[in-house]
Order: sequence, then C-alpha cells, then structure tokens
Amino acid sequence: MKTIAVDMDGVLADVFEQFVRYDAARTGIRKSAKDVFGLGEVELFPHADTDLLTPGFFRNMSVIKDSQEVLEQLNRQYQVFIVSSATQFPQSLTEKQDWLKEHFPFIGWQQIVFCGKKTIIQADVMIDDHFKNLDPFQGETFLFSQPHNAHLDAGRHIRVYSWRELEATLVSNDTKWSFR
Amino acid sequence: MKTIAVDMDGVLADVFEQFVRYDAARTGIRKSAKDVFGLGEVELFPHADTDLLTPGFFRNMSVIKDSQEVLEQLNRQYQVFIVSSATQFPQSLTEKQDWLKEHFPFIGWQQIVFCGKKTIIQADVMIDDHFKNLDPFQGETFLFSQPHNAHLDAGRHIRVYSWRELEATLVSNDTKWSFR
Repeated sequence: MKTIAVDMDGVLADVFEQFVRYDAARTGIRKSAKDVFGLGEVELFPHADTDLLTPGFFRNMSVIKDSQEVLEQLNRQYQVFIVSSATQFPQSLTEKQDWLKEHFPFIGWQQIVFCGKKTIIQADVMIDDHFKNLDPFQGETFLFSQPHNAHLDAGRHIRVYSWRELEATLVSNDTKWSFR
Repeated sequence: MKTIAVDMDGVLADVFEQFVRYDAARTGIRKSAKDVFGLGEVELFPHADTDLLTPGFFRNMSVIKDSQEVLEQLNRQYQVFIVSSATQFPQSLTEKQDWLKEHFPFIGWQQIVFCGKKTIIQADVMIDDHFKNLDPFQGETFLFSQPHNAHLDAGRHIRVYSWRELEATLVSNDTKWSFR
C-alpha cells in the first residue's frame, strides 16, 4: 500500500482565506487572490507574523473545498499521513490536532505528523503547496496551487488546482465504490 | 551529513522514573527497575494510562543522564531530529516542546517531529527504546536500554545502556574538540 504525505495549511486548511479574514478585520478591505499574485503571504498581509501567533488562528480555519470527501477516499486506498509544519508555532499544535479531529475524524493520531523541516519524511507521494517541501522529496510530488505559488513554474512537480483533480489522478475507480 | 532520529521518552526523558514517582505518590511504595523486569510499564503501573493524560506528566520529567552533553556533541556532527510519538496524547504536544526548549535549547523547532507511527521517518540512524519503532526502520538502529525492554533480545539492533556509550560510538573524536 503506497504512502501519501498530505500537507495541512494551504492544502486541507485554507490559510489564505484566514489571512484575508484577519486582514479585513483590521483594515476593512477584503483582499483577493489576484492581489497576492507574485507576492508572498507575509508581503501581502503585513500582520501575518502576529496572526500566526494569535490563539484561534489555526483552530478556526475553513476547510479547502472537497478535501474531506477526497481524502476519505484516499484514506481507504493509501497509507495517509498528515504532515504539517507546526513546531515553529507551538500554540498551533493542539489547535491543529483539534481541527483535524473535527473536520477529518477518519484520520487517527497514528497518521498525524507535526514537524519543522520535512526532509525527514519518507513516502511515495507528497501533496504540498511549498517548493521547499516538495523539492527535496524523492517520490511523486503534487504542488497544490495557492495564490503564493501561482506565478511560479511548477518544475518537476504536478500542479493541481483542486481536490477533484487529485481525486481523478490518485483515486482508483476500480476500488472506489467497493468500499461504500 | 548523516541524519539521526532521536526518541524522547525513555531516551532523553526519563519516563520510567516519572511512572515510579506518580505510582509512589499514590501507593507510598517506590518500585524499581528490578520490579519491572519482563513486564510492560502499563502492567507494572496500573494507573499509567491516567498518568499519561495528567497535565504536567510530560513537562516535569527528569532528563536522562548525560543526554544533554552528548546530544549537543551529536548536534554538531549530524543532522539531529527529535522524533517523539506524541499525537496519542494531544496535551503532551506543547509540554514536550516546552520541555525540549528548557533542557535542550540547542535543538531548534526545525528539528522537532511529533508523530504517531514512526514508519514515515527516514534517517541514517535511529535511537529508540521501542522495537515497534526500530524494527521497520531501514538505517542503523540503537536500542536504548530501559526496564521495559531489558529482558528482550535486541536482535539486529545495537543495545546501549547509556549516552556515554552512544558518545563512544557516534561522536567522532577527530572533530569533537575542534568545535569547542
């Protein structure tokens, strides 16, 4: 059974939308993905560093569209691990685990990895929105499209724009229905 | 530079001593390593499951002898990652990170991994007190001797009884002093 390492922020949890919300609460202006084109999140959202340390920032993120349904399918066909950079923000650790428990209850504690640098991770497939995680990875790599990476060449990674695309590529139709 | 994955509980943090303390506070009797011979910790300490969920249990563990000094040496010669099974006890996450910050301040957040199953970890060397983590690991494996594993055949793993033994095996004397 193949192993998949799935990132949280920007892949399951909508961190961009959360930055937009926190920024709008401060400025009254709701920025959009078009505004970020070519910018890092920290450049577009000048208070990003403060927001990331605010209690509740990680706990109350929106779930990225279709991720629950498709990840549940993948979880039947692969060894799924949720691999999240979290130790930089220690307060995020329990928030992230609580968030997963609420939105992805089929993911057990055995499948959760909170780390810093992802070079220590081995798996067959990695789904992530950051090149720093995908580039050193040995297996198959999917770049989950997000405003902060939209202007960059995906290189050897396969860019996907949605969980439906991941479903089409990774879920085997032969077995897809047999588990239902 | 080679990568080393170092376990926390039973390798850096003295979880056995912590079980003894919590048990003694309850019963008035201080058990010793001799009592545990051939028993799992949960068999010897009937309240282990409750203790593991008690706030402070992980935060207030003693540091295993010589681990600070030797790990600091290893940290100059290897890419060190602290890899700890922690997601089973979500309250342990911040306690463990705070504990590391206090006792191993030279370990950065980039080097910390809190996970469930360690099969997702790739490294050249693993130091751990549990066969379930060492057995599936592809690299060089050191079994850190603890009361719960003392009666078992180490098999292909190298049993070590102390951090001084790890120092003798893993720290290169050529460079050991040049960094000081």
